[in-house]
This record gives sequence, structure tokens and C-alpha cells, in this order.
Amino acid sequence: MHTLRRTMYRVLETSSGKRRGVSLVFNVILITIITLNAIAIVLHTVPEYDRQYKRLFSEFEFFSVIFFTIEYLLRIWVCVENEKYRHWFWGRVRYLVSASSIIDFLAIFPFYFTLFATDLAIVRILRLFRIFRLFRISRYSHAFRLIQRVVTDKKEELILSMTFVFFMLIIVSSVMYYVEHPAQPEKFSSIPATMWWGISAMTTVGYGDMHPITPLGKFLGGLAAIIGIGLFALPTGILVSGFTEQVRSHKTPVKQICPHCGKEIVSSP
Amino acid sequence: MHTLRRTMYRVLETSSGKRRGVSLVFNVILITIITLNAIAIVLHTVPEYDRQYKRLFSEFEFFSVIFFTIEYLLRIWVCVENEKYRHWFWGRVRYLVSASSIIDFLAIFPFYFTLFATDLAIVRILRLFRIFRLFRISRYSHAFRLIQRVVTDKKEELILSMTFVFFMLIIVSSVMYYVEHPAQPEKFSSIPATMWWGISAMTTVGYGDMHPITPLGKFLGGLAAIIGIGLFALPTGILVSGFTEQVRSHKTPVKQICPHCGKEIVSSP
Amino acid sequence: MHTLRRTMYRVLETSSGKRRGVSLVFNVILITIITLNAIAIVLHTVPEYDRQYKRLFSEFEFFSVIFFTIEYLLRIWVCVENEKYRHWFWGRVRYLVSASSIIDFLAIFPFYFTLFATDLAIVRILRLFRIFRLFRISRYSHAFRLIQRVVTDKKEELILSMTFVFFMLIIVSSVMYYVEHPAQPEKFSSIPATMWWGISAMTTVGYGDMHPITPLGKFLGGLAAIIGIGLFALPTGILVSGFTEQVRSHKTPVKQICPHCGKEIVSSP
Amino acid sequence: MHTLRRTMYRVLETSSGKRRGVSLVFNVILITIITLNAIAIVLHTVPEYDRQYKRLFSEFEFFSVIFFTIEYLLRIWVCVENEKYRHWFWGRVRYLVSASSIIDFLAIFPFYFTLFATDLAIVRILRLFRIFRLFRISRYSHAFRLIQRVVTDKKEELILSMTFVFFMLIIVSSVMYYVEHPAQPEKFSSIPATMWWGISAMTTVGYGDMHPITPLGKFLGGLAAIIGIGLFALPTGILVSGFTEQVRSHKTPVKQICPHCGKEIVSSP
Repeated sequence: MHTLRRTMYRVLETSSGKRRGVSLVFNVILITIITLNAIAIVLHTVPEYDRQYKRLFSEFEFFSVIFFTIEYLLRIWVCVENEKYRHWFWGRVRYLVSASSIIDFLAIFPFYFTLFATDLAIVRILRLFRIFRLFRISRYSHAFRLIQRVVTDKKEELILSMTFVFFMLIIVSSVMYYVEHPAQPEKFSSIPATMWWGISAMTTVGYGDMHPITPLGKFLGGLAAIIGIGLFALPTGILVSGFTEQVRSHKTPVKQICPHCGKEIVSSP
Repeated sequence: MHTLRRTMYRVLETSSGKRRGVSLVFNVILITIITLNAIAIVLHTVPEYDRQYKRLFSEFEFFSVIFFTIEYLLRIWVCVENEKYRHWFWGRVRYLVSASSIIDFLAIFPFYFTLFATDLAIVRILRLFRIFRLFRISRYSHAFRLIQRVVTDKKEELILSMTFVFFMLIIVSSVMYYVEHPAQPEKFSSIPATMWWGISAMTTVGYGDMHPITPLGKFLGGLAAIIGIGLFALPTGILVSGFTEQVRSHKTPVKQICPHCGKEIVSSP
Repeated sequence: MHTLRRTMYRVLETSSGKRRGVSLVFNVILITIITLNAIAIVLHTVPEYDRQYKRLFSEFEFFSVIFFTIEYLLRIWVCVENEKYRHWFWGRVRYLVSASSIIDFLAIFPFYFTLFATDLAIVRILRLFRIFRLFRISRYSHAFRLIQRVVTDKKEELILSMTFVFFMLIIVSSVMYYVEHPAQPEKFSSIPATMWWGISAMTTVGYGDMHPITPLGKFLGGLAAIIGIGLFALPTGILVSGFTEQVRSHKTPVKQICPHCGKEIVSSP
Repeated sequence: MHTLRRTMYRVLETSSGKRRGVSLVFNVILITIITLNAIAIVLHTVPEYDRQYKRLFSEFEFFSVIFFTIEYLLRIWVCVENEKYRHWFWGRVRYLVSASSIIDFLAIFPFYFTLFATDLAIVRILRLFRIFRLFRISRYSHAFRLIQRVVTDKKEELILSMTFVFFMLIIVSSVMYYVEHPAQPEKFSSIPATMWWGISAMTTVGYGDMHPITPLGKFLGGLAAIIGIGLFALPTGILVSGFTEQVRSHKTPVKQICPHCGKEIVSSP
């Protein structure tokens, strides 16, 4: 029994030891199913495809949930093989509340819930939860882990600059509200409504559904765009430098050998 | 009396000495009231909330002004405890004209003024002044001080590039006016009116309310966007480098070894 | 015969040896014809020019294809002079499937095909293929080769960040679909349709043909623009650093002195 | 006579020697007149101001031209005092064709020409030339000279990346034309017309007057925006690095003294 659990553990978690081949095959199948799920979730919202392949979509949904459920239960069973979740009860509880396990749970939970739900509004919200299945792929995505590390590293600076962005958004939108409200009372109806213009101007998206028409409002609008470019330069610069540092830190340290004396020079990068 | 003043000073200004606990509690309360004020100012412009919670808003406004007024007067009383404002009269005068004291004053002044003001236009403008209360939080915001330091550091370069942005804006808008005015006399009605298009094109916001329709105008429009991207790259680059320098200078000091005597030099960056 | 082939090879491929003058003249003529082709392809789509200069366009098209065909056949004949394609048969086959030879082929192939094609839809698609002639200029463009090298160098990082961009696009568009679909069922009709809004918001283009109208949708829209600025900062930063590295690596080599023996090390960057 | 010429030369060209005070006063007056001219040119296009202050505008225009003409003639007279334009005839000819002298000429020439011009179209174009007066201020602007130096320094890289931008613009617009023309024959009427969309999409301006509606067109539109962000990152990065280098090169080299042995350490920045 314990040997079977160990084997299953090795298959489920990509390891470099025994059962590597079987584990690889399993993980390729899992990634394929997750990707097909993402495609299905995206395509089933297109009315034509939904009409034509309604049965295929629901059957694939049914199959996916069964597959993910079995996998979820197996993972709970075998998690105690991991050093971190050793205890037969508390280890499993701790595994259940880990980030990756919660993502796994959110991928299957909506299906079971909708079987019993009678309120259609809740059913529709829960359908949205299915896109969490896509996050399951993050377990394998190098990109996802890298971005996660960059964000963790630069957390402080990002929060700092985001605070300032939010601060400026309130200031700019408040001033714009008092300036444009008398001229366009329907569009610039309140400060929260003006904040939609504010974020659109400061990020330079500029949808064009709302824009100042008074001379003072236009002046402020131009100023907001310039401030916005400056403001968003900060998080951008932080992320770029964080990303560069992460990529650099994974390269081997630069070793060099002096061609004259043959000794090694370790240059600090 | 003097002991009381000293105690009050320690409570009002976050210090690391005695009365630290009381000071912390007071400052948390102050930040909470300022934040609630910002939320109230933003939400009271939404007609629904204003109708429903009109009384709550005005009562909270009344309470806030009382609170801020008492705090303002207390700060004037205790400011002489600070080395910088030692003199009982001139010290207080100098404190009154300091940036943070003026912000404190602007946060309460509109309320008292509107009590006596009969002109509604002035009352509306003064209401806008209430968002200055939000700036009071800058006393505590690390982000605000950091940005302030970056802007102060790079003042020259920023003014330099902003001058050039403004210069190009006038040139681009003037040329566009002469090109597009005959084709769209209502939209491109004057150079100042065209500058609204100019700032929207050069910041790449592109609201879409004004855009050239003649071939030459479109060519110029494309050029303006390219010039704009190049131009705004400068202040962006300046701010990013300034921000990076500020963040770096707060990290561990750089160690260096003197090549002449081999001893360590701790350089303050 | 072999001497003629060698001479032709020297003329066709810009070399620094003999026949340099003739080669230069030939290549200038070739670049001129390619540029004129690009101008003709662009201008012949303007109805007025097409009507007025219809005959000139078709005659120039005919002449260009004849010229390119002769040049194409000559290149196949002489390619064996190149060390890489030495063998009289396999060398030529390998030359035919090389990137530059395929571009040469795509520049003439549509013309011959349309002579026999009866289906108008295919003819129209093949006309598009003619812009591949413009890629022929990449043989000479320093810029093109530099960009190519930058992209090759940073391939991994670019794919990494593009994966993440695509991942976020699906997540953002899916959430927005479920939020905005009930309010605007015609515009946000499906997730793929919402992805058009998603890419327009995240790249900050903001055409304005689709934009959220519900408060939650607007909040998400603002968030998407902020996420987008952060996301696109990554490939931007990667490309800029790659470009800088490439430009720098063509400048003077870095000199360094070995700390052990004091002699100079010329490091190839 | 020669002494008078020398004195005039010292007054006209800001020098640090004798007549420094007079020169300063003259130059401040000149900058003021240029700035007032710019304001007048911008404001006289606003119908209301033009009607109200028509006489003031024309009188100021008359006065400015007289002032600039006298200054222009004086500069020609005194230019021989400069080492570079020593010869009484050829020196003056060379001065006349120098960049700053041509700008001075373009600032006054339109006025005299319009006195004799009978064709209104030419008069209108010449009016546009008056904004060249603004360029006269570049003689004094530190920002202008700095930008000029950055652009000169990075000329090669900028041309390189601009070539690539133009290349991609043609490719993207051509493909989009063939894709969208059948669906929107009026908007995407020709490749040059589609290039207006192309530049608007690639610079992320997104006016919204033209946008693809077919699925393939939308896919291409998204791709164009992503390519555009990457492309414009290059000139942006080049300008930022050039600007940083210029600013850095004007700061004093970092000198440091070892606190242990007192010797100087010259660190290469």
C-alpha cells in the first residue's frame, strides 16, 4: 500500500528520480487537458460553437471534472509522502490549504456546486470560476514562477508606486469633477464616475467615451496624461529592473581566466 | 504647563521616545479620519449616496472640521518644542508658513469660509479645496516623500525635458492648425484648440474626438505620435533612474577597498 | 564557363574582392527596383492612381518579375561557388530551401501562379504575397539583421513574457466577459470577442468601439490597463537591453587588467 | 566705426566679457519679444481674440518685424567680428547660410513677401512660417542644445530603428489592407489609407476612426499593437540612454579620497 502511494506520488509530482517517464506522460496529459479546458471555456461562449458542439462541450466538461476530481483526491492521499506534509492528518490539512491545492479545488468545486444550486445568478458567477483551471498550468509555467518571484522581490516598491498612482488618480479625478461637472453633468456625474476617465487618461488608453470639453478641463486632461506617463514609468521601471535581475541571477557567474598567469579572476557582476 | 506642552508635542509628532504608544494611537486615528474624509468627499458626489446619507455626510464633515481645528490649534501651541520653531512668536509664525502647516490650514479653511460666503460659485470652488485634506496623509506616506525627493533631485532635467515637450507641442499644433483648419474649421478652430489634439496625440491617449482627415494632416499626425513617444521617453527615463537611485541609496552601503593601502572604505552613496 | 560563373557570383553577392564596382552598381539597381516595387504595391491600391497609371503599374510589374526571375535563376546557377553550397545538385537544393532563396521565390511565384489561377479569391491572396518583395531588401538592411540578432539572443525571455501576456489576456477577457456580457450582450458577445477589447485595453490603444459600462466592468477595465502597462514593460525592457547589448558589442573591446600579474586582458564581450 | 561694431557684437552675442550687462538686458528683451510673438501667433487664431485685439496683433506684428529686421541687419554687419566669419564678404556670405542666420531670416521673410503676394494660398502658407520665430529661442535654450546633441550622438541607431519602424508599418498596413478591404472598402480604401490606422495602432494612439471588424483583422490589429510597443521601445531606449549619457558627462568626475592613506582614488564611472 505504502509502495503504491510512493509510486503515485512520484508520478503526480514531476520528479527527476524513478518513474520519470510515467510522470512525464501523466503531466503532458494533464497540461493538454487543462489547455483544452481553457479553449473550451473560451469557445463555448461563442453562440455558434455553443449551439453546434453543445454536447461535446458538456461531455468534455463532465470528463474533465471527473479527471480533476480523481487527481485531486489522489494528491490528498499521496501528499504525506512529501516531507512538508508528513503527518497523516495535519499534513493533509496543511496541504489542503496550500495555494496549489486551493487552485485545484477551485477548478472542480463550481461543477459540483451548480448541481445543487437553484439560483441562476450564482450558477453564472460559478461558471466564471472555471477559468481558475487555467491557473493550474502555473504549476508548470516557468514564466509564471519568474513573474511571481519578481513581484515578491519588488513588492515594497510596487505597493509604494501603486499607492501614489491611486493617490494621484483621486486628486486628478476630484479636480476634473469640479471643473467638468457643470459643463457635462451627465458624463462627469460624480467623482467615482470621473475616475473612469482618470484611469483611461492616465494610462493613455483614451477610449473616447468621456473627455473634457471646457478649456480648463482640456488643460487638466493634458496634464493628467503627462502625469500618468510619468507615474506609470515607475512601476514599469521597477518591474523591468526586477525582471532583469531575476534573469541575470539565473545565469552562471562570470568566470574568467587571465591568459598571462592562468589564474582565475572572479568578477562580481 | 510646559510639561503638558511637551507631552502633547510627543503625542502629535510621531517620535520614538516617551509616549510612543499614545502617539501611535493618535496618528492611527488621524489617518483613519483623513481616509474616511477622502471616501466621503468622493462618495458624496454620487447623487444616490448624497440623497441617502446627506445627514451622515454633513455630520461627519462637521466632526472632521472640529477635530482638525483642535489639532491645528494644538500643533501651533506645541510647535515651539521643536528646535526649528523655538521662539514663542517668530517660531510660531515660521511654523504657520511651513508646507505641512499650510496643508493643515487648507483642510479646514474652506468650511469656515463657506459659513459666511454668500456667492455660490465661490462655495463650489472651496468645496474642491477639501480634497487638500487628502494631502495631509502625505505627512505619513513614505511613497509621497520618496517621489518628492526624486522630483527635487531631478528638477533640472525634468524642467529641461518639459520645456522641450511644450516647445514641440506648440510647433506641432501650429503646423497642424494651418494644415487641418481649412478641412475641419470647426474642430481645428484655433491653435489653442489644436493643442488639445496635440497633447492627446503626443501622449498617445487618442480620445478620437479630434483627428486629422487630410492626407498631409494624417502624415503629420503620425509624425506627432512618433515624436511624442520619443519626447515622453525623456521625463520617463529621468524619473525611473531617479527612483532607482533613491531606492538603491537606502540599501546597504557600498564597500570598497583602497588600492593603495588595502583598507576598507565605506562610501556613503 | 566556370570563370563566367565565378564572375557572376562576384557580381550578385556583394563581395569586397574583384568586380566590386560592377557588384555595387548591380546591387544599387536591385535595391532601387525593390523600393520602386514597394511604392508601386502601396500606390496601386489607391483607386485614382490605379485608374490613371494602370498600364504603367502592370508594365512595371511585368518588368520586375522578368528581372527577378532572371536574377533568381542566375543565383541558383552561381550558388555552387559558395563554400556552403558546393555540390552541383545537393548544394543547389540546400540553397533553394535557404531563407533568402525562399524570399526570392515568394517575390516571383505569385505572378506566375495568377497566370493560370481561375479562382479570384486565390488571386487576391497571392497579390498580398507580393509585399514579400520588400523583405528582399532585408538582405542589405543592417537594421533588419540587428533586430534579428536581438530577437534570436533574447528568444527565451521574449517567449516567456509573451506567454504571460497571452495568459493574462485570457484571464482578463474571461472575467470581463462574465461581468459585461449581461449589460452589453451585443458588444461583449463572447470571450474571443472580449479579447479584442482586452488587447486594445492592455496595449493602451483604446479604440473606443468597445468599453465596459458597468461599475465593476470599469474597475476591471482600469485594472486591465494598469496590468497591461506592467506586462508590456517586460518585452520592452528585454528588447531595449538586447538592442543596447548588440550596439555596445560592436564598439571597442573592453580592456581589463589582471590583478594577479598586472598584464592586460582583452575580453571579447 | 570698428569700435562701435565690436561693441554691438558684444551686445548682440551673449558674451562673458565687457558690455555683459547691456548684452544681458538686450537678450532678455529679445527673448521676451520672441515669447510674446509665439503667444500672439497662437492666440490670433482664436476668432474671439482676433476680433477684439485685431489692431493690437497687427501692430505688434509690425513692431516685431521691424525689430527683428534691424537686429538681422546688425548681426550681418557685426558677424565679421567673429573668428569664423572674418572675411568682409565671404565671411558674411557664410554667416548668412549658417543655421541660426537662416532661422532669423525665416522669422522676417514671410512678412515682406506677403506685402507683395497676391495669391492668398501662398499668404496662408507663409503665415505658418511665422512660427519659425519660436525656433529663434533655441539659440538660448539649454534643453534644445542638449536634445540636439543627443540626437546627433545617436543618429545612426535612431535611423536604424526608424527604418525598421517604417518597414514594419508598410508590411502591417499592406496585410491589413488585404484583410479588411473587402469588409470595410470605404475605411480601408487603400494601403496609404490603411497606414493611418497602422501608425495609430502601432503608436497605441488608437483614435477609433478606423478599426478592423473581421476576426482575422482584429487578430492582426492586436499583433500590430504588440509589435508597435516593441518597436517604439527601441528609439525610446536609445534616446533615454543618450540623454542619460549627456547629463552624466556634464557632471564632474567622481573623485574619492581613501580615509586611511589619504591618497586619491579616481573611479571610472
